[in-house]
Amino acid sequence: METTTILLTCPDSKGIVASVTDFVYKNDGNILHADQHIDDKSKTLFMRIEFDPANFKIEKERIRNKFNEIAVLFDMNYSVKFSSEIQNVAIFAGKEEHCLFDILLKQKAGELKCNIPLIISNHPDMENIAKFFGCKYFVIEKTPENKISQEVKERELLRKFKIDTIVLAKYMQILSKNFIESYPDRIINVHHSFLPAFKGAKPYLQAYEAGVKLIGATAHYVTEELDNGSIIEQEVVRVSHKDTLSDFIEKGKNVEKIVLARALKAHLENKILVYGNKTVVFD
Amino acid sequence: METTTILLTCPDSKGIVASVTDFVYKNDGNILHADQHIDDKSKTLFMRIEFDPANFKIEKERIRNKFNEIAVLFDMNYSVKFSSEIQNVAIFAGKEEHCLFDILLKQKAGELKCNIPLIISNHPDMENIAKFFGCKYFVIEKTPENKISQEVKERELLRKFKIDTIVLAKYMQILSKNFIESYPDRIINVHHSFLPAFKGAKPYLQAYEAGVKLIGATAHYVTEELDNGSIIEQEVVRVSHKDTLSDFIEKGKNVEKIVLARALKAHLENKILVYGNKTVVFD
Amino acid sequence: METTTILLTCPDSKGIVASVTDFVYKNDGNILHADQHIDDKSKTLFMRIEFDPANFKIEKERIRNKFNEIAVLFDMNYSVKFSSEIQNVAIFAGKEEHCLFDILLKQKAGELKCNIPLIISNHPDMENIAKFFGCKYFVIEKTPENKISQEVKERELLRKFKIDTIVLAKYMQILSKNFIESYPDRIINVHHSFLPAFKGAKPYLQAYEAGVKLIGATAHYVTEELDNGSIIEQEVVRVSHKDTLSDFIEKGKNVEKIVLARALKAHLENKILVYGNKTVVFD
Amino acid sequence: METTTILLTCPDSKGIVASVTDFVYKNDGNILHADQHIDDKSKTLFMRIEFDPANFKIEKERIRNKFNEIAVLFDMNYSVKFSSEIQNVAIFAGKEEHCLFDILLKQKAGELKCNIPLIISNHPDMENIAKFFGCKYFVIEKTPENKISQEVKERELLRKFKIDTIVLAKYMQILSKNFIESYPDRIINVHHSFLPAFKGAKPYLQAYEAGVKLIGATAHYVTEELDNGSIIEQEVVRVSHKDTLSDFIEKGKNVEKIVLARALKAHLENKILVYGNKTVVFD
Repeated sequence: METTTILLTCPDSKGIVASVTDFVYKNDGNILHADQHIDDKSKTLFMRIEFDPANFKIEKERIRNKFNEIAVLFDMNYSVKFSSEIQNVAIFAGKEEHCLFDILLKQKAGELKCNIPLIISNHPDMENIAKFFGCKYFVIEKTPENKISQEVKERELLRKFKIDTIVLAKYMQILSKNFIESYPDRIINVHHSFLPAFKGAKPYLQAYEAGVKLIGATAHYVTEELDNGSIIEQEVVRVSHKDTLSDFIEKGKNVEKIVLARALKAHLENKILVYGNKTVVFD
Repeated sequence: METTTILLTCPDSKGIVASVTDFVYKNDGNILHADQHIDDKSKTLFMRIEFDPANFKIEKERIRNKFNEIAVLFDMNYSVKFSSEIQNVAIFAGKEEHCLFDILLKQKAGELKCNIPLIISNHPDMENIAKFFGCKYFVIEKTPENKISQEVKERELLRKFKIDTIVLAKYMQILSKNFIESYPDRIINVHHSFLPAFKGAKPYLQAYEAGVKLIGATAHYVTEELDNGSIIEQEVVRVSHKDTLSDFIEKGKNVEKIVLARALKAHLENKILVYGNKTVVFD
Repeated sequence: METTTILLTCPDSKGIVASVTDFVYKNDGNILHADQHIDDKSKTLFMRIEFDPANFKIEKERIRNKFNEIAVLFDMNYSVKFSSEIQNVAIFAGKEEHCLFDILLKQKAGELKCNIPLIISNHPDMENIAKFFGCKYFVIEKTPENKISQEVKERELLRKFKIDTIVLAKYMQILSKNFIESYPDRIINVHHSFLPAFKGAKPYLQAYEAGVKLIGATAHYVTEELDNGSIIEQEVVRVSHKDTLSDFIEKGKNVEKIVLARALKAHLENKILVYGNKTVVFD
Repeated sequence: METTTILLTCPDSKGIVASVTDFVYKNDGNILHADQHIDDKSKTLFMRIEFDPANFKIEKERIRNKFNEIAVLFDMNYSVKFSSEIQNVAIFAGKEEHCLFDILLKQKAGELKCNIPLIISNHPDMENIAKFFGCKYFVIEKTPENKISQEVKERELLRKFKIDTIVLAKYMQILSKNFIESYPDRIINVHHSFLPAFKGAKPYLQAYEAGVKLIGATAHYVTEELDNGSIIEQEVVRVSHKDTLSDFIEKGKNVEKIVLARALKAHLENKILVYGNKTVVFD
């Protein structure tokens, strides 16, 4: 079934929920889901409404225009998404294949509704995986020296393939500020720790040395500050003194896969709103 | 802050969400939460709307009447609840005190918003606990022979103390059909297994003998059929071959406490709707 | 590092642990792990000792003979395993690829120490996956009529490829009693429920209709009675009224993968002892 | 059943496990549990052996002396514990009662095998709880100025009541270096975060502002450096954008109780060995 989703955020005031639901109802949309959340501290309202547009009186192309009449009244930031507009996702892959494989498999199984036309990597190791799943594969090796010029090539590819969302699947390279700002809240990374603990390099080693009894992974939007973007999803798994550093890494992989796939799924289903360094993830 | 909550269920059709939100909005209620769920199979809609009635134009006493105008249009079952009307809860206590204590402590701490005027038990063991928390304590010993007449006494007490909700805190006595039907979806039991596995007596022994690797507990509404009422909440904890039956029981206690308290909390906050043998638990 | 593992079970009595550790020590083996468990009910002892045989005085071929001298004293069932003897695993694959892929990937990553020379399936769909991972792929279609004769073909393949362990990766076919008895405690199945709840067909549908709040998966050894073999590992994931049957299936897949991989790993590392319908899984 | 437990740690070398098990066996002790762990990095061995001393040839008073003959050979740090020597525990209580209550209840239920003769607090609020459970209650108010002199009083009480272990049940006061060093690895604290994240004051607020999706609690031995002692146990619970800071605090309480009780239980059962900033927790 095709659906239309309106995501919005604005200062809280009376009448927002009623106005938005009324907009859908009066125009013969059938509301499937309507969630909202009010952040008490900042008095901000977040709302997501998804409806069946089968008999919707407003043509697709004009919905944004029409909805804008309500949006201006309440000073809304909003977006209108159509489930028929499947997002194009690029995966930036590192040396570990588990997250890459997991996303490709879930996309193939229909669990992640997106196209994945493009995989970019620092090295050629994943080419046969890309081939297996029918994705284009580009090796763009980066060094501290050539990073900016290589990013130019990456950005050309992203444009060429009309990429909406970038997934860093254990990519392990730091993107430039400029690059990141071109894809605000559209680059998802998985960090192999329970952030904000163990930022930066070798989080499993940090965890191992700290003697923790649970290890975790975090999926977050990428911002300029390393491992500090808004958290989308986190999960943990139990470890004990019996687990070596290798066991930490191995156990952690399952958790990394799970959080990255859950985060990407919520993102693709237009269920995430970012505010400050936090996310609202409607479920 | 005082709030008003409308809980409703009806056959799904267009306009329900819009009508209900509009009802609140037009009468100057400020919507705090609005959740709905559609069961695709039965085409049933479930909705919960909670609003701040500070400036609500309709007087408290007349809200039900007024809302009824919408309700009849959509063939709704509904209830209107006021946060100021604190529920009275009776606890039926068995020989184990952990669930009893947990609920009393959480009520005292303000986590469970209710009054607990009354504890009924089969035996005198918990009297000093009742005293400590300032509850009346009644010993009503039941045998298969005197069950019906003893239930008469219990029902008198429930009426006298204006009890809205009954919590069976490891009570371990089976209530009569008649008794249960007088409190539909208002008696909450905790069963010490991950239902529907291990119904009936000695679920930990059953689990132990089945060699399971996780044990659980289930909070559910009580219906005539034993351990078969609509499930409200479940949780599990890991066990291994090292755990004896006593370890199962001990580990299970934490889980029992957690699911019972979560279920009661959702119930008291008017977040549960029952349909068939299932529950919608808004969060 | 190469290691040698002795797994044993026998009636509990004094001196077993001391005798076994002494056997290793006196022969210059360096004990790396020694775990034991006593089942109080049946007074049975289970023990696993793993040692570094670098300087072991007894030649590999003669260890069993030598250890037998202790074994007869205590009436032990035992096995001696060498980490250098990598097990050969056959996967029986059904129509869903997630468990198949997960095992192949973990084997490739070195997390599951085994060879996987052989994949058998009821249909040709997984052939390209087998090819990708360099495994032979055989389609052996089964009907109720030809089951026994087809199993003959399967058993020939299992012999030819010297298969030690069979993994049923959502195979969805019932093996004959005869077949199962040829591989006692060497066939691992994953059932997509939290056993013993929801045995048999369509467990997610059963769970959905029961209105449970957690769903699970179970890895177990296959015995003649369907879904009733000794449980090796279980895990659960939270669901709510919002989850459709499809969501149950999708969420369940991650859990199925995790329990099957954990069970196979423990099996390959000779950490499992079966007694009655239970398992000791040393960690 | 009475049991004897030897806990030891020493540089790893061949023969340790065999010598210790042989010591028990030759003297007619029946081994109930024997666990060991080798830290690969520091080449340190940790061992715990628990046996039934019913027919043990060495008298209780002489076991330490006798075992010392082995201990010197391997340069062991070791302790010999008798289950009949029940530990005396003092609870230092703050303003929140949930952890205090939970420990007192579990002690009463026999789940925590210890005496709790003494509760010390900064204020009089918990006196009736102490009374209910039959513990002495002392109010020792501390200010930055009188801390040292007040600790003198506390230490007198600890001596008078022969306290072995101190539990800080949300005590929220920082003990002096001197005090801490008098009870090495014998003071257990619960910190309401998933350490090392969110050390120090207001961890739930820190977590709330960081936008995490799981919150946790940590039980650890107290060392001079705040919230930095060896971690014994950790647990987490899921939160979402819907949870207010109050919800974080409320959900966190269950987790705090669970980790503190598990840590204390392992401590009382002599299952913990500390090395550096880590713990081995045998299970």
